[in-house]
Amino acid sequence: MMPIVTDSSHSYMRELPLYQTLADELRGAMNDGRLTAGARLPSVREAAKSRALSINTVLAAYRHLESCGLVEARPQAGYFVRARLASPPPALAPAPGSARTAEVAVLNRITRVVAAQSSPDTIDLSLATPRGGDLYPGEKLARLVSELARRQPALVSDYSLPPGPLRLRREICRHAADLGMALVPEDILLTNGCMEALQLALRAVTRPGDAIALESPTYFNLIPLADRLGLKTIELPTHPDDGLSLDALELLLSEKRVQAVVCMPTVHNPLGTSMPIAGKKRLAELANQYRIPVIEDALYAELQYTTPLQPTVKSFDRGGWVILCSSYTKTLAPGLRVGWMEGGRFQRDLTELKFCSSVAQPALLAETLGLFLESGGYAHHLRRLRRAYAARIDRLRGLIDTAFPTGTRATLPTGGFLVWVELPEGCNADALFDAALAHNISITPGNLYSPSGRYTRHIRLSGCYAFSDRHVHALMTLGELAARQCR
Amino acid sequence: MMPIVTDSSHSYMRELPLYQTLADELRGAMNDGRLTAGARLPSVREAAKSRALSINTVLAAYRHLESCGLVEARPQAGYFVRARLASPPPALAPAPGSARTAEVAVLNRITRVVAAQSSPDTIDLSLATPRGGDLYPGEKLARLVSELARRQPALVSDYSLPPGPLRLRREICRHAADLGMALVPEDILLTNGCMEALQLALRAVTRPGDAIALESPTYFNLIPLADRLGLKTIELPTHPDDGLSLDALELLLSEKRVQAVVCMPTVHNPLGTSMPIAGKKRLAELANQYRIPVIEDALYAELQYTTPLQPTVKSFDRGGWVILCSSYTKTLAPGLRVGWMEGGRFQRDLTELKFCSSVAQPALLAETLGLFLESGGYAHHLRRLRRAYAARIDRLRGLIDTAFPTGTRATLPTGGFLVWVELPEGCNADALFDAALAHNISITPGNLYSPSGRYTRHIRLSGCYAFSDRHVHALMTLGELAARQCR
Repeated sequence: MMPIVTDSSHSYMRELPLYQTLADELRGAMNDGRLTAGARLPSVREAAKSRALSINTVLAAYRHLESCGLVEARPQAGYFVRARLASPPPALAPAPGSARTAEVAVLNRITRVVAAQSSPDTIDLSLATPRGGDLYPGEKLARLVSELARRQPALVSDYSLPPGPLRLRREICRHAADLGMALVPEDILLTNGCMEALQLALRAVTRPGDAIALESPTYFNLIPLADRLGLKTIELPTHPDDGLSLDALELLLSEKRVQAVVCMPTVHNPLGTSMPIAGKKRLAELANQYRIPVIEDALYAELQYTTPLQPTVKSFDRGGWVILCSSYTKTLAPGLRVGWMEGGRFQRDLTELKFCSSVAQPALLAETLGLFLESGGYAHHLRRLRRAYAARIDRLRGLIDTAFPTGTRATLPTGGFLVWVELPEGCNADALFDAALAHNISITPGNLYSPSGRYTRHIRLSGCYAFSDRHVHALMTLGELAARQCR
Repeated sequence: MMPIVTDSSHSYMRELPLYQTLADELRGAMNDGRLTAGARLPSVREAAKSRALSINTVLAAYRHLESCGLVEARPQAGYFVRARLASPPPALAPAPGSARTAEVAVLNRITRVVAAQSSPDTIDLSLATPRGGDLYPGEKLARLVSELARRQPALVSDYSLPPGPLRLRREICRHAADLGMALVPEDILLTNGCMEALQLALRAVTRPGDAIALESPTYFNLIPLADRLGLKTIELPTHPDDGLSLDALELLLSEKRVQAVVCMPTVHNPLGTSMPIAGKKRLAELANQYRIPVIEDALYAELQYTTPLQPTVKSFDRGGWVILCSSYTKTLAPGLRVGWMEGGRFQRDLTELKFCSSVAQPALLAETLGLFLESGGYAHHLRRLRRAYAARIDRLRGLIDTAFPTGTRATLPTGGFLVWVELPEGCNADALFDAALAHNISITPGNLYSPSGRYTRHIRLSGCYAFSDRHVHALMTLGELAARQCR
């Protein structure tokens, strides 16, 4: 028996069984092909009438499907079925950590991938950030930076001392509230992108020889970073639907085998998916219980497709064990490299470490972002960005569906612009990278995302650009190359 | 007998004994008070006539005095005697390294100093960088950044990938030539100020447990940085006239006791002085011979008062063992935090380390600096800056001379805007810091500049600002407070 919720904003909860029935029925239709990608669902009014349900019930069902990433709402047009590639279960068997060689190999591969991405001739299907800036308020930010520089040239000619402009730190806290976090400006440390935040966090809480737990797959740059800091890495099985395995983590913690955890539970890179709220709560509790720092990378958290945004792990942090790292690189200003962190109980230590590692951030850029955020343009921009990326990811998954060989599977992102693709048996992502590059197409091979080099038949694709004919053609070529491999 | 030099650009060398005689005579007059600070030397023509010397001989003598920092040339006005506080020999006796506690203490003191500097009520006599920007082309840079942002908003909205704008890296190489270095743009790595360059360099060439040699005194931020990286520090006696003791260093190298050297041989912070060229050559040779990386901090090297600029150690580097770190923070744009490094044989390693530590620098700021440098405005700006700082340092030394108790000694800077002051016996710099702060005056106590906390009666003063009545009054107060201590 469901509890009766009286808060009117949750009134559909009262009718949970009915909306659930409708949602399940529609999900079934999507699974057996009666509803295909791109199909429009009946309008809320039609559906309510034909099934004798209340408008609220139908709306609840549609919103539920939307929050599962199965349909998307297009303003003034209705709800549409999204492309429906299945989520791949990642390879879960723990691999022995003959790490060093693999880590060097990861670095070499990163270098090759970046080189490929940087070439103007390459059609980039992998870079996790847009170019051409069609979705970012480059013009408005440029105007702001331009006016600000003229009005306050001291921002250029005076020394940038930490902690940097209060305006930005205040705005960061205001927006952090949307992700469930109660932060204060005094505790916000500005950094050179999210990467410096992660680097400082790892340096603050570990000593060489320590071991850290990483999601598997994980953000690739963590692998050489850990290696450089003399850290051993242990891969945590991470499922697109559930996030990192908390049972596996608790085992490691109870055996005192790791000194820190680095994870991206909200809109994961490369998976594109998020850990359920209950998991996040438990992760925060584990950190507190075992007194182990959790470094939470929230880089894409504001790019969740559905609002209200699901909270971060930091939101459930009681003892200050969660260090939150983020940046405006993916959400607002990819070129400005303004990142930030909140270090919980490690705050003072991190502040000192930042000072003797790179002193401060350029005040002009920080103040520009502060002004933009204060102007209120951010909420509008984010709404637009979420819709655009949801649509692009949908298109990308549709194209993968069409172009790639049978047996290909792809995650169903809950935000951001990345998809993790598992190719059929017999495919090899490294060979595909080479073959694609010969066609001037750049992808990221999956073995980059694991210290042990697993995910040999996975690739990360990016849906952050507007799909031109060139991109579509490149994806078709890529699909064909993959098909040749597993023939 | 002096060798006859036939190269006409060195023609005054032929008359070396004569010019030396004149220079010595003038130096004597300065020492015994016949020529006081601010006095104008006889014009070259007058002096040549009255002493029956050639114009070249007199010029050579004056230039020699100028290169010793004893007189300064003012365009269209002649040569003037500079304030004449004696150089203090730094405390040379090696101290036992009960480092950790001292290093924590250094950090706490840095925090207090930065807090004092950041307060708007404080009259800052210590911050090693100007505020109010009267000497920096803030307006011109602001105009450039402003125009650039409008013309190329993609610099804001597109992702900043390494290695960053070629224009800036090319200009860096062009200006590095003035310091005797032959660099190529492909090897220039942009960083978040010089501090990130130093941090990356140290992380690239050391492992925790290693020992590094530091100058004593040294740039204070190196002390907590080394501590954070798990490095032991060994202090090298460093004399204002000779730079770090190369004999002491060679002893350490021959005993394999250090794995890297960090130094600032050209316009040292806090000493303000430079190592002679022969010493730099020998240092480069030692690095090569013992295969030990020398991390050279050239932050102030372009602020040498006299041109042609003396070369860096890197200029004499044969085997790629010198890692040069620098920045435009002190020379051009204190607020932009655009630094750079050239890593010799460690270049590839440093590039990878940068990528997994903070990825890249904001392209907008790097491109702005590139445009400024390309415009040719830099050489003119530097000339103006050098003259202004030479004059300010002179004024500062004059004020110290007047305000401070007898027995106070100060270095004679060859560039930049920092003076290292040794207070008379009985004074205590930490107590002076507290007493000064009670009068809203901020100074930097000398024990900050050594891992072992020596230099307890030294302070660093900064002459980077235009001296207002407020500054003069603060210096007088400071002198009085010091006088009270040693009474």
